[in-house]
Amino acid sequence: MTVTARPADLTGGRPVVPSRGALRPLGLAEVRITGGFWSRRQHLIGSATLDHGRVWMDKLGWTGSFLRDGDANADRRGREFTDSEVYKLVEAMSWENGRQPTPGRDREIAELTTLFAGAQAADGYLHTAFGGPGQRARYSDLSWGHELYCTGHLLQAAVARTRTTGGDDLLTVAQRAADHVCETFGPDGPAVVCGHPEIEPALAELARVTSEQRYLDQAALFLRRRGHRSLPPHQFGWSYFSDDVPIRQAHTFRGHAVRALYLAAGAVDVAVETGDDDLLGAIIEQFDHTLARRTYLTGGMGSRHEDEAFGDDFVLPSDRAYSETCAGVATVMLAWRLLLATGRSRYADVIERVLYNVVATSLGDDGRSFFYANTLHQRTPTAVVPDDQEQLGFGGGPRAPWFEVSCCLGNTARLIASLSAYFAAATDDEVHLLQYGDAEVRTRLADGRPVGLSVTTAYPDSGGVRIRVTETSGGEWGVGLRLPNWAGSGATLTVNGVPQPVSGDAVGSVGRVVVRRQFRAGDEIVLWLPIHPRFTHPDPRIDAVRDCVAVERGPIVLCAESLDAQLDLDRVRVDTAVLPADYAAVSPAEHEKNPEQSTVSVSAVLEQTAPAAWPYGDAAAGGARTPTTLRLIPYHRWGRQGPATMRIWLPKT
Amino acid sequence: MTVTARPADLTGGRPVVPSRGALRPLGLAEVRITGGFWSRRQHLIGSATLDHGRVWMDKLGWTGSFLRDGDANADRRGREFTDSEVYKLVEAMSWENGRQPTPGRDREIAELTTLFAGAQAADGYLHTAFGGPGQRARYSDLSWGHELYCTGHLLQAAVARTRTTGGDDLLTVAQRAADHVCETFGPDGPAVVCGHPEIEPALAELARVTSEQRYLDQAALFLRRRGHRSLPPHQFGWSYFSDDVPIRQAHTFRGHAVRALYLAAGAVDVAVETGDDDLLGAIIEQFDHTLARRTYLTGGMGSRHEDEAFGDDFVLPSDRAYSETCAGVATVMLAWRLLLATGRSRYADVIERVLYNVVATSLGDDGRSFFYANTLHQRTPTAVVPDDQEQLGFGGGPRAPWFEVSCCLGNTARLIASLSAYFAAATDDEVHLLQYGDAEVRTRLADGRPVGLSVTTAYPDSGGVRIRVTETSGGEWGVGLRLPNWAGSGATLTVNGVPQPVSGDAVGSVGRVVVRRQFRAGDEIVLWLPIHPRFTHPDPRIDAVRDCVAVERGPIVLCAESLDAQLDLDRVRVDTAVLPADYAAVSPAEHEKNPEQSTVSVSAVLEQTAPAAWPYGDAAAGGARTPTTLRLIPYHRWGRQGPATMRIWLPKT
Repeated sequence: MTVTARPADLTGGRPVVPSRGALRPLGLAEVRITGGFWSRRQHLIGSATLDHGRVWMDKLGWTGSFLRDGDANADRRGREFTDSEVYKLVEAMSWENGRQPTPGRDREIAELTTLFAGAQAADGYLHTAFGGPGQRARYSDLSWGHELYCTGHLLQAAVARTRTTGGDDLLTVAQRAADHVCETFGPDGPAVVCGHPEIEPALAELARVTSEQRYLDQAALFLRRRGHRSLPPHQFGWSYFSDDVPIRQAHTFRGHAVRALYLAAGAVDVAVETGDDDLLGAIIEQFDHTLARRTYLTGGMGSRHEDEAFGDDFVLPSDRAYSETCAGVATVMLAWRLLLATGRSRYADVIERVLYNVVATSLGDDGRSFFYANTLHQRTPTAVVPDDQEQLGFGGGPRAPWFEVSCCLGNTARLIASLSAYFAAATDDEVHLLQYGDAEVRTRLADGRPVGLSVTTAYPDSGGVRIRVTETSGGEWGVGLRLPNWAGSGATLTVNGVPQPVSGDAVGSVGRVVVRRQFRAGDEIVLWLPIHPRFTHPDPRIDAVRDCVAVERGPIVLCAESLDAQLDLDRVRVDTAVLPADYAAVSPAEHEKNPEQSTVSVSAVLEQTAPAAWPYGDAAAGGARTPTTLRLIPYHRWGRQGPATMRIWLPKT
Repeated sequence: MTVTARPADLTGGRPVVPSRGALRPLGLAEVRITGGFWSRRQHLIGSATLDHGRVWMDKLGWTGSFLRDGDANADRRGREFTDSEVYKLVEAMSWENGRQPTPGRDREIAELTTLFAGAQAADGYLHTAFGGPGQRARYSDLSWGHELYCTGHLLQAAVARTRTTGGDDLLTVAQRAADHVCETFGPDGPAVVCGHPEIEPALAELARVTSEQRYLDQAALFLRRRGHRSLPPHQFGWSYFSDDVPIRQAHTFRGHAVRALYLAAGAVDVAVETGDDDLLGAIIEQFDHTLARRTYLTGGMGSRHEDEAFGDDFVLPSDRAYSETCAGVATVMLAWRLLLATGRSRYADVIERVLYNVVATSLGDDGRSFFYANTLHQRTPTAVVPDDQEQLGFGGGPRAPWFEVSCCLGNTARLIASLSAYFAAATDDEVHLLQYGDAEVRTRLADGRPVGLSVTTAYPDSGGVRIRVTETSGGEWGVGLRLPNWAGSGATLTVNGVPQPVSGDAVGSVGRVVVRRQFRAGDEIVLWLPIHPRFTHPDPRIDAVRDCVAVERGPIVLCAESLDAQLDLDRVRVDTAVLPADYAAVSPAEHEKNPEQSTVSVSAVLEQTAPAAWPYGDAAAGGARTPTTLRLIPYHRWGRQGPATMRIWLPKT
């Protein structure tokens, strides 16, 4: 691990600021997304999602919970964790305000901060569902109370606010809450943990913001205390809470996916700050195992509805795939920390896959609706949800304006609002582009030299990425370009029009090419990634998609969609002898207008199915076949044109 | 529908006594199981299961709930539906006492009846979790309170007691409870339903026992009231409660499997008693749809853990297949009613499949442990559960001595104790054998002639069934023999050694052959069913088992089991070019000793799997293959020799 300097400037809009690592993160002040796929979504978050969230949280009384006096406590509305939704919204508002400050948003954050401060107890405790008159006692239900989980999201909101605007009252509230946690659960406190991890990465990040060692120590203490079955027995088992075995002894993520991933993110923070390479190695091993055996093609994690949990290895059914949106956000949190720590491009690949195929799938075109879960196979047409209807619980319905458990909104919003920070990072004298999109990068190298890059691209519709040096003050430095694993050895590169080698073991093993030279302003690097549709085959141990194939195009997973179930997707069989092709019926002009609509076609047959009274028989079935051409669309586009059926994995002929 | 006489004798041990139908049921007094597969299990229920259930229900306070005085009500232990477990146990005890009366069991039933009577309110209401001091009000939580559900099981216990021993105090308690239900929810009562159906078939059967029309009317009224979304919204949707659409308008079973099946059983009862052929037709259509698209190879129903529910059509993953034991019992309840109403042998096939592959699978060899759910694929070795440990909730663990939700014990026990009643039925002048096993049948034809049959067979290990006429008083009559659908056209038949035709459309369409003649005592019919292992292929729309094959032998579904996961079942590929064979290494003598252990072998390969960091790639994987012979065992035998992995569906080479 390369030791990189701790940035003197605590602001600058970095979500995560480790004191050491292979890469130094850049912040919202240094990287701006200026156009394209993610710019459109950032606009949506700022113009629709945040206000939508605020309106609903006011309407449902979730913000009002902070205002209530003692007498009315019995009427508090919503589940135990609604405070955390308000905090996540404030975190998202803070990133958005860092990206594009407006006085109105600034005022809103300040108002909400005043609410929080007013609800905080004298000793720093802050939770609207416990400890008040007529309420259950503080920390009386560690499994399900979500108290420390909510505190964690408060801390993360304060970190975002501090890193974008500087410390203010929100940081004060957060520190008082963190101090209370340290006093209650410190080394002499009870050896217990919160059922839902989140306080761990939050305390670690607050320690980085405040330089308060005891927050980091407390995070480390919570990590050590987990895995000893201190939580009461539950039908989901201790694994649900990652409380079944100590974190260093596990070999894979298991149980509730979001819990496991938040915890792992906190473990990486602690490992990096304390130089605990054993712990870091344990998390890397667990993540590797999870990626190899417990992850959907989309990058989605968690296959089970019942407990929102990972299944056993290779239990990845497309039907009712859970693939919770928040697990996607948590995967990005974890992968980002590992990317900074190790520099392995693989983690940027994971982030890319999850962004395009989980996060972008969840977010509705109006910015006001979300998939809570992201199934890979929809057999009956999705329902239509009225704009004003809250969905009870969570689960597997269509994109909906609101859920009783509405974490997907805040999580999606805080990630997308801060997304430019995930686009680039630096070493001492290199700027690495980790995600591709129209962007401006301006930063200083370790020795203080200012450098700037301008990226223009139609990625991911096209594989061409043009990088222009906009600022340099002489001397050699480098521009690193991620070579996505899906690109194989197909990438090509020119610098000022001159082809450069993009091959060899060095490049292949790290998934990156670095152009080093004495750049001049105006120098131009062009990277071509081989974006053309390709067939993808599953590991044979994934029974649920045996003998099926998926089609991917660059980082985009494609799917077949049938509006109003006009095409029976259960009858489709794809002929893999004919390569998939970009859909010819879309003209270049049309494509330009609606870049994200780009489609792919595959050669297929429709197989007749015979009605049978019993679906098991003495011969492998297979009726008459009619040739057809099947049009595929990006998976993240599905379910946007009305009730639809959908499948990603397509049986082969 | 043939109208058959209502049996004058209300006792005789018949679980269901419709006043008309294609077949007239026989009771425990007319059919005795004398040996073989089910005799062993009947012995287990009588010698172990019933006492085991009583001990646990006493230990956990479930029986004690009926004893409690007002003050202690707040401390009532267990879930809202524990009363129903005690009732189901009493129902099972009653059938067992009818099968094999003992003074001790009789006393135990009387003692428990005294308990129930003591807890019953003056107006007939009886439930230990509602309506008492400090408890929630009666019927204040129709969705989850299970009050009418519990009452239903009380009624069914009283029906069993009355039909085996004659009416006693238990019938009085039940009638008082039923009267209270009719008074509370009668035509002028609220248009509501209980979240868990069960009161419907119970009221219908109590009406048959007591000739009280108003019980039947109340059952019909509850049926009419369901499907109008009178229950409050819930995240599982109204379909969970079968309250989404009126029962006549549905096209398939859906939602919670046990609820849907209990309700359908009640609907058949009402349809038959009121001559409502439309209603009967609707249930037949829904059951047909469910069998064709929502049923596992084992006959198990309900694929989802989260809500114990049916999935969409063809969503039948083997991994974590739920296939709840109680849904199996409920399927038998429904299929039996439809078999009596229509005479279609298909329903006896369903019963056979469920008995051998769900009910027999659930029941542990000690009679003191049960599978709550019956998965079709176990990837990680089953856990070992201590004898004294209750499993929280329900769900997918190993066979366990007790569950917080322990309905599998009572349901399995009441079905197996009364199982001889499902072995045979009659028309006016025919006795039909519906299930094969060593048995004695003695009954009277409609005109009063006594007839008797003795059945000897090693079924299902062998396909030979010998039926000897033990009693006849002259004149022609018939013996009907079910031809299971799995036997295809392979059955052969002799009467007194003379081959008889077993073919033709008539036979094929009804799944039955009838030998009619002027029998003499000693006449012998021998049926040979082609029991040899066969490959079974799934409908291609069941994605989860695409390109896989299962092996069945007679009514038995087979599986591959790996003790301590010594054989990696994920690597097995079966060569279907080589027919499966009975396992040669088991000698005839061994087989005689342990008939249920009979195994089958298939030709297979073990495929090498390469470790991969990401389980999706650009080529269909498939490593080096090592030929092997794979031994299969009956599915119902799995998990009995220690921690094991298992799979029914095996990928093809």
